[in-house]
Amino acid sequence: MVYTELKKVKCVVLDVDGVLTNGNILVTEEGHQLRTFNVKDGYAIQYAIKQGLDIFVITGARSKGVKVRFDGLGVKETFLGISDKWTLLQDLLSKYNYSLSEVLFIGDDMPDYKCMQKVGVAVAPADAVEDIKSVSQYVSKYKGGEGIVREILEKILRLQGKWHNDVLTTSI
Amino acid sequence: MVYTELKKVKCVVLDVDGVLTNGNILVTEEGHQLRTFNVKDGYAIQYAIKQGLDIFVITGARSKGVKVRFDGLGVKETFLGISDKWTLLQDLLSKYNYSLSEVLFIGDDMPDYKCMQKVGVAVAPADAVEDIKSVSQYVSKYKGGEGIVREILEKILRLQGKWHNDVLTTSI
Amino acid sequence: MVYTELKKVKCVVLDVDGVLTNGNILVTEEGHQLRTFNVKDGYAIQYAIKQGLDIFVITGARSKGVKVRFDGLGVKETFLGISDKWTLLQDLLSKYNYSLSEVLFIGDDMPDYKCMQKVGVAVAPADAVEDIKSVSQYVSKYKGGEGIVREILEKILRLQGKWHNDVLTTSI
Amino acid sequence: MVYTELKKVKCVVLDVDGVLTNGNILVTEEGHQLRTFNVKDGYAIQYAIKQGLDIFVITGARSKGVKVRFDGLGVKETFLGISDKWTLLQDLLSKYNYSLSEVLFIGDDMPDYKCMQKVGVAVAPADAVEDIKSVSQYVSKYKGGEGIVREILEKILRLQGKWHNDVLTTSI
Repeated sequence: MVYTELKKVKCVVLDVDGVLTNGNILVTEEGHQLRTFNVKDGYAIQYAIKQGLDIFVITGARSKGVKVRFDGLGVKETFLGISDKWTLLQDLLSKYNYSLSEVLFIGDDMPDYKCMQKVGVAVAPADAVEDIKSVSQYVSKYKGGEGIVREILEKILRLQGKWHNDVLTTSI
Repeated sequence: MVYTELKKVKCVVLDVDGVLTNGNILVTEEGHQLRTFNVKDGYAIQYAIKQGLDIFVITGARSKGVKVRFDGLGVKETFLGISDKWTLLQDLLSKYNYSLSEVLFIGDDMPDYKCMQKVGVAVAPADAVEDIKSVSQYVSKYKGGEGIVREILEKILRLQGKWHNDVLTTSI
Repeated sequence: MVYTELKKVKCVVLDVDGVLTNGNILVTEEGHQLRTFNVKDGYAIQYAIKQGLDIFVITGARSKGVKVRFDGLGVKETFLGISDKWTLLQDLLSKYNYSLSEVLFIGDDMPDYKCMQKVGVAVAPADAVEDIKSVSQYVSKYKGGEGIVREILEKILRLQGKWHNDVLTTSI
Repeated sequence: MVYTELKKVKCVVLDVDGVLTNGNILVTEEGHQLRTFNVKDGYAIQYAIKQGLDIFVITGARSKGVKVRFDGLGVKETFLGISDKWTLLQDLLSKYNYSLSEVLFIGDDMPDYKCMQKVGVAVAPADAVEDIKSVSQYVSKYKGGEGIVREILEKILRLQGKWHNDVLTTSI
């Protein structure tokens, strides 16, 4: 991962299934789809937002629980049921005035492909499909749901000098 | 796995527990049995159906949630509470006019045994019981619920030239 | 494991947490404790009962879902909320007229200790506590919830000539 | 881990996410956050309390289910929704008259940092963040939710001569 590029990141876009989760969904008798999230990811998301980073969640999933979770953590916007992520991402860039090179995108499967080809930094979990890894600048050692979002957000914040300066004296 | 046989597959039949799941069921206080499914499997199922592949789910399980899940993905028919899978499979073949050699079956335990002895391609997850592995043409490196259905469907579609020709330029 | 002793087993007693499950409980907002069971274990339990083996479940847990699950599989009696398993086991032996040498017990933690010291065959999962392993005749390679009950029941039935004689031609 | 220090422990303080759980939360459609606990941990907690050890749970989590769980096990006080753990810990010390050297704290992430710098024995699971490991006297081989609380409580009780003297004849 090119650290100079991480330093420039202003906007982080996260896929849900296979990135913020391990790709599993628990289906209830009513057909609701429940997801399992990682608390270390969640801690980093709310902390990064307090330090001024903009975070978006874009997913094909339609479960209300996903929106409740990420609204609660302070995510700027959470988009459910999105099939064309690339068109949505372009809208976001013009709405919030980011350039593509300031965007980091974490994704793991084909619906993320086009966005990840285009953004400044594309990151994949260890268990992303091969086609996604091949367009990523960085493939984490963590699988989806194992803390990849924490890893990346902590790296960005440390590089930008914003990770727990209250108690920690060292960085990176 | 014989690739010429995969190329001929028109009909894919899936067991649920231990194939589309890791074989675990979460039991609620009311005795409902909830299952955990893999989103990469689900993505491949709906995509393969759009590309013209017929997919059936046959299970001994009786949970409504299973039917809701696979109806939602576009599966042709989902059969719950089946103890004699072989008789049902024969009925399906005559109803839809498939020959046995055009059928791929993924199963992991004794109720799948007879079907897997007879179909064109029998596939087992890494953690299937030994008797099932012994009648399989291909044993995946993936355990049940880890994406074996994605692996097989993607292989079939790539061999048939139908996997994401919109964005990908290479195959297999 | 001494195969001659397995051949004599008439009665199998199962602990729940850490044996039929991986020792995890999912706690709901209301404080219900939900458990995750293995379908291969469940398949073997109902099959073994049809072949004439008596199976009992004895647990310290108090969740109704546990009872619903094992009643549904045909278990002879399921006892919830038991702190003194040894006294209960002695009652069962006289009620059903088993000798201790005909009993196989699978357990993983201190409440199982005394029963496992006394029965004919004591079996522990790979992740049982050390004190339990030290009084076991057989420590499985499977952890709790990974199919240890299937492994043991299938072994007993094969040794007794009762495992799927309808389709299989070999044994053990 | 210094055994002489463990022998002096009178008060054990536990973080929840990543210590008593593997750090995952299951989010329902209503946005409830459900956690998965380890029965071997639970067994040790209730047993240690009966042997006279004081146990507290302090967490940033706000889920009622957490409180129900640990009240049920006999934990002295469970504090939900705590952002400043260090201030709370100081209040507890003066309320119950413990010295810092008598306190063992198990934590895994930044909100635990300050407490773990100060207490007599700081313990981290194998998958704690690096900054937490660096202020810990002992890093377990167990990850959060895998039984680290059982490991530590059993160690303390064996050293204090209080672990199952009814049936066991050896210690440590």
